[in-house]
Amino acid sequence: MKGLVNTKVNHVELREVEKPQLVAADDAIIRITLTTICGSDLHLIHGHMPTTPGYVVGHEYVGVVEKVGSGVKDFRPGDRVIGPAAPFCGQCERCRAGHIAQCLRGGIHGSGAEFGGLPGTQSEYIRVPFADVNLVKVPDELSDEQVLFVGDILSTGYFSAEKGDILPGDSVVVFGAGPVGLCAVHAARLFSPGQIILVDIDSHRLEVGAKLGATSTIRADQADVLAVIGALTGGKGADVAIEAAGVEQTFQQAVRCVGIGGRVSIVSIFGRDVALPLPEIFMKNIRIEMGLSYLGNMKRLVRMIQTGTLDLTPLITHRIKLGEIAHGYELFEKRLDNVIKIAITP
Amino acid sequence: MKGLVNTKVNHVELREVEKPQLVAADDAIIRITLTTICGSDLHLIHGHMPTTPGYVVGHEYVGVVEKVGSGVKDFRPGDRVIGPAAPFCGQCERCRAGHIAQCLRGGIHGSGAEFGGLPGTQSEYIRVPFADVNLVKVPDELSDEQVLFVGDILSTGYFSAEKGDILPGDSVVVFGAGPVGLCAVHAARLFSPGQIILVDIDSHRLEVGAKLGATSTIRADQADVLAVIGALTGGKGADVAIEAAGVEQTFQQAVRCVGIGGRVSIVSIFGRDVALPLPEIFMKNIRIEMGLSYLGNMKRLVRMIQTGTLDLTPLITHRIKLGEIAHGYELFEKRLDNVIKIAITP
Amino acid sequence: MKGLVNTKVNHVELREVEKPQLVAADDAIIRITLTTICGSDLHLIHGHMPTTPGYVVGHEYVGVVEKVGSGVKDFRPGDRVIGPAAPFCGQCERCRAGHIAQCLRGGIHGSGAEFGGLPGTQSEYIRVPFADVNLVKVPDELSDEQVLFVGDILSTGYFSAEKGDILPGDSVVVFGAGPVGLCAVHAARLFSPGQIILVDIDSHRLEVGAKLGATSTIRADQADVLAVIGALTGGKGADVAIEAAGVEQTFQQAVRCVGIGGRVSIVSIFGRDVALPLPEIFMKNIRIEMGLSYLGNMKRLVRMIQTGTLDLTPLITHRIKLGEIAHGYELFEKRLDNVIKIAITP
Amino acid sequence: MKGLVNTKVNHVELREVEKPQLVAADDAIIRITLTTICGSDLHLIHGHMPTTPGYVVGHEYVGVVEKVGSGVKDFRPGDRVIGPAAPFCGQCERCRAGHIAQCLRGGIHGSGAEFGGLPGTQSEYIRVPFADVNLVKVPDELSDEQVLFVGDILSTGYFSAEKGDILPGDSVVVFGAGPVGLCAVHAARLFSPGQIILVDIDSHRLEVGAKLGATSTIRADQADVLAVIGALTGGKGADVAIEAAGVEQTFQQAVRCVGIGGRVSIVSIFGRDVALPLPEIFMKNIRIEMGLSYLGNMKRLVRMIQTGTLDLTPLITHRIKLGEIAHGYELFEKRLDNVIKIAITP
Repeated sequence: MKGLVNTKVNHVELREVEKPQLVAADDAIIRITLTTICGSDLHLIHGHMPTTPGYVVGHEYVGVVEKVGSGVKDFRPGDRVIGPAAPFCGQCERCRAGHIAQCLRGGIHGSGAEFGGLPGTQSEYIRVPFADVNLVKVPDELSDEQVLFVGDILSTGYFSAEKGDILPGDSVVVFGAGPVGLCAVHAARLFSPGQIILVDIDSHRLEVGAKLGATSTIRADQADVLAVIGALTGGKGADVAIEAAGVEQTFQQAVRCVGIGGRVSIVSIFGRDVALPLPEIFMKNIRIEMGLSYLGNMKRLVRMIQTGTLDLTPLITHRIKLGEIAHGYELFEKRLDNVIKIAITP
Repeated sequence: MKGLVNTKVNHVELREVEKPQLVAADDAIIRITLTTICGSDLHLIHGHMPTTPGYVVGHEYVGVVEKVGSGVKDFRPGDRVIGPAAPFCGQCERCRAGHIAQCLRGGIHGSGAEFGGLPGTQSEYIRVPFADVNLVKVPDELSDEQVLFVGDILSTGYFSAEKGDILPGDSVVVFGAGPVGLCAVHAARLFSPGQIILVDIDSHRLEVGAKLGATSTIRADQADVLAVIGALTGGKGADVAIEAAGVEQTFQQAVRCVGIGGRVSIVSIFGRDVALPLPEIFMKNIRIEMGLSYLGNMKRLVRMIQTGTLDLTPLITHRIKLGEIAHGYELFEKRLDNVIKIAITP
Repeated sequence: MKGLVNTKVNHVELREVEKPQLVAADDAIIRITLTTICGSDLHLIHGHMPTTPGYVVGHEYVGVVEKVGSGVKDFRPGDRVIGPAAPFCGQCERCRAGHIAQCLRGGIHGSGAEFGGLPGTQSEYIRVPFADVNLVKVPDELSDEQVLFVGDILSTGYFSAEKGDILPGDSVVVFGAGPVGLCAVHAARLFSPGQIILVDIDSHRLEVGAKLGATSTIRADQADVLAVIGALTGGKGADVAIEAAGVEQTFQQAVRCVGIGGRVSIVSIFGRDVALPLPEIFMKNIRIEMGLSYLGNMKRLVRMIQTGTLDLTPLITHRIKLGEIAHGYELFEKRLDNVIKIAITP
Repeated sequence: MKGLVNTKVNHVELREVEKPQLVAADDAIIRITLTTICGSDLHLIHGHMPTTPGYVVGHEYVGVVEKVGSGVKDFRPGDRVIGPAAPFCGQCERCRAGHIAQCLRGGIHGSGAEFGGLPGTQSEYIRVPFADVNLVKVPDELSDEQVLFVGDILSTGYFSAEKGDILPGDSVVVFGAGPVGLCAVHAARLFSPGQIILVDIDSHRLEVGAKLGATSTIRADQADVLAVIGALTGGKGADVAIEAAGVEQTFQQAVRCVGIGGRVSIVSIFGRDVALPLPEIFMKNIRIEMGLSYLGNMKRLVRMIQTGTLDLTPLITHRIKLGEIAHGYELFEKRLDNVIKIAITP
């Protein structure tokens, strides 16, 4: 089959690779019907994450069950499914403590041996371990595109909003209108904040954010971000800040823009240390949380897509074939043609 | 009456000052029977906090009610009482949201007009606003020394432990064996952690910490702190870190020493920004909380002193008269003679 | 002035009564511009609650500040305001513990000496104690009708939903489509449940409930309520049940209809003991919460009325003058003419 | 091997039964070294729980791994272990939601086909499913007796205390000084309540309770229980009540004895419905929780036995051989000879 291989640092290539096989009794083989490119694929390819090249890339997918191991009880060939970017076992000490993102026996699809060696989804087939634990059936009435983001960026957006403990009527600021930030905006709506302020430098993405739920947008390069947030919150500061941009400046704005008792939720991966302005923020009694997304809420999210409460299809700006994926990477990395997410069909 | 006046930056002087008078109907005048010097008095005196000299210093006290305003219902002259370092009103928007440390109408005793202009306790009398809300009666069987720390550092130690969400059997690390750190050690015991590891460079204070509840102590200048904590926690890292030392190094050790899902509680006042090693700690999904202590638990703490569960009298290493306070400051600031806290009688 | 006096059990009469005067420095006198009749007025009048007749009835209002005591800081004559049915002080031990509904110094308007002796709102003027703590300014753009329910039944509906810890996508069942149940339906939406099932025997009220947010309605007299809920929740039972009907049958349906880990929130006042089917429900590990509404979220609720997220004006089915209140009571008590709530202008 | 078989209602008999075999790859066979009789064994035997006789009884054990399936990674023959009374899979929908007591694939040892058909421990060997998830290694320095109760009644006592959200200094009342109630007393200490009041009619058990941590005891048959609790709590009522007696009277005392904001935690199995006095308790805004114990904290509990924080060996009043188990049942059921728990060696 074809698969996009991260052959060496800064280089990917669509190659003929071996089709994954069942290894353990609780494995399933999934035929990919839709996949996409994620910002963390770029981190991996450029060597920003500790990984050894030579594997198929990609971790987001919709597919159809092709084959299941003898221990799989809830799925059978033909089932239309999605699964988490990072499958987990549910049984190890960390999973039992709720830390499924740090599962001792799972990993992240398409991220190399350092992250569990699980097959990448920018290909035709993958193997999913602990299938009963990880796979989620896709209701017939939902299209592949409607559920494409559930297993990664929608879960992450929801996680970031949940960590903010948003109360009805609260003020929420989201830094970064990339795919994760846009999902955070859309998911934050579920907690009925009074306002969702989206900050970025890209007008098109801010417009998409407004469609997905942002009540105000700030062009970070054209405004005094903290002053605008101050004005929008009546001088009190925001209740919740979600950092999905990943640079020191937005991190600092996040901890500065919240008011007394504010919650800051960080879901970006940072490449370097950041200065935390403790003398300035200490007396506000704020909380900062960070970390890998919790991917155990997929069924809940699918249910809300079914009821129409969540709809992230506006993120899909381009649709291509797997054969054109090299072009897709170029678009995505250079942010050409107002790209946000690219749906890729094998 | 006599009062220690912060006359100008870096200078204090015991002077004749005016005795405070009742101002509002819910005020009380308290005759001080015991007070002490706190680390934050030094911050104020040295101009590390934004305050204009010219006021009586001090915010910790035990005393006797001298006079009450017409609106005070629960206290009368002769009552033996303690009160919080930072009185609050209970009625403003912030208090009603639980943020009593940021009360819009309260302040911090002995910290100047910038902090509410409330009289300092290193004197003979103070005025306490919102007396019914703030004062707590001292049970007859408890001595002044037993309750001297309830209104500030014991509350702060308890607050820091509470913010750590310590579960029975957890591992807790406390950075800093100063008065607040020692109170944190003692208060952490209330949540039955499996171990309390105390880190400092002062052997005497570590010994006091061991008496107050630390199960292990680490001389930070003689050991690889993170390696020792790693070994003590079976390689998993601590569940909770409490930062009560206030320097960048211990801050970084705090966020590094916790394991997956760890909680970091910061109660020190930092003089400058610190580098937060996000790339290193992000994937541990930790939480960092910070801020001014909650002083609304004084009755609860007094109850535990009554049952013998809490006893912080070992912190009192010296006992002096108000007339000798200049000498007390010298001892305290230079950490002479193994001083920890000095009980001062007017 | 005129006021509706509960003269003796089962009898009310519009009489000339004395206009309330300022008593304490933090009092305010409010001229009522809109009030309404509540189900608990009936409980009081019929002697179902422990109260001695002889006072003006009513506890819901919108009004204009007429006069303020010397200690009131945030309000002045002419301010348009609403306030809680049960004013609280914010300073007593209970308030400081968050139990403002049980304030030691507050009470419930129009409920007699047994509940604090505070003036009733079915009149022309009331006295509000602790004015700064209790009053909330009404934004100019909102009409009296839009905010009429904030201080009682909307707060109660919100409280009932909050106690349910509703997660996005959850199933919620509300028992009782009276004014409080309808507010619960409307408030539950704020937490984005997947479905809100409303149960009652009154088709008109169920229709109003559907407009306010119910996704399914069940005519309790025409269906097997538990079977329908079972079917709607895929056999798992509901996540949350809100009991706002106040009879044993609905109470039992509430505890039976929830699934494993379900939360039951009771906001009705029950006239007698109910049988709790422990053998049947024990193994579901459910939680039951009950009690008087928390009235400290009024500003938050007003904010959501401003953004259009909440709109309870559909509850107002009738508009009358205070002079016609006897007729209003008849309508309300006998549920004539599809009445839900009656807006009354003095 | 020998095993105590529940042959028919009200009858058990020590018989020769088949030794359990490995069934699934993640099974382990454990040779029992210590077991005991539990109150719920009596419920089963007397037909109070829905079960069909004909199986080996018992669900508490310490043992040694005899054999493991091919999928077991963390245990090997010779390991000394304990395990939960109710093994769970960690992977089903309920387990992933944290409801491991209701696992779809687990069950309760020694409780018949209706509860998963898992082998009983009052025998020589058992089969434990999902061995890696369920078994916990026993540290060498701990005796079998020290850890005998971890997998059931200690976990239950801990669970009951945890559900009470006990804060330091709180008042806790435990109803019932049977084995579970005594474990609740001992576990409640971990949260540093100001007092633990134990209520029962058996003086000996109350004495044992006092040794395990109760600060006051009440002979329910000789005192006005509610009046005594009222006096002990300064008229405010308890903060937390734990119901471990299982009769209507104690249930009602539990909901009545708590004060405003009280938490009631029910861990007894009730044979019939109870009357809930809603009119009387509604205005206290209390919470009632109930249900099967969470058995996922065994490692945490073992750690606290190691540090000496927990020690339940005082519960063991008798030590017998499996051959004498009929006599053990007689003692236990009739509460002869001050029996509390009987350690049984195969």
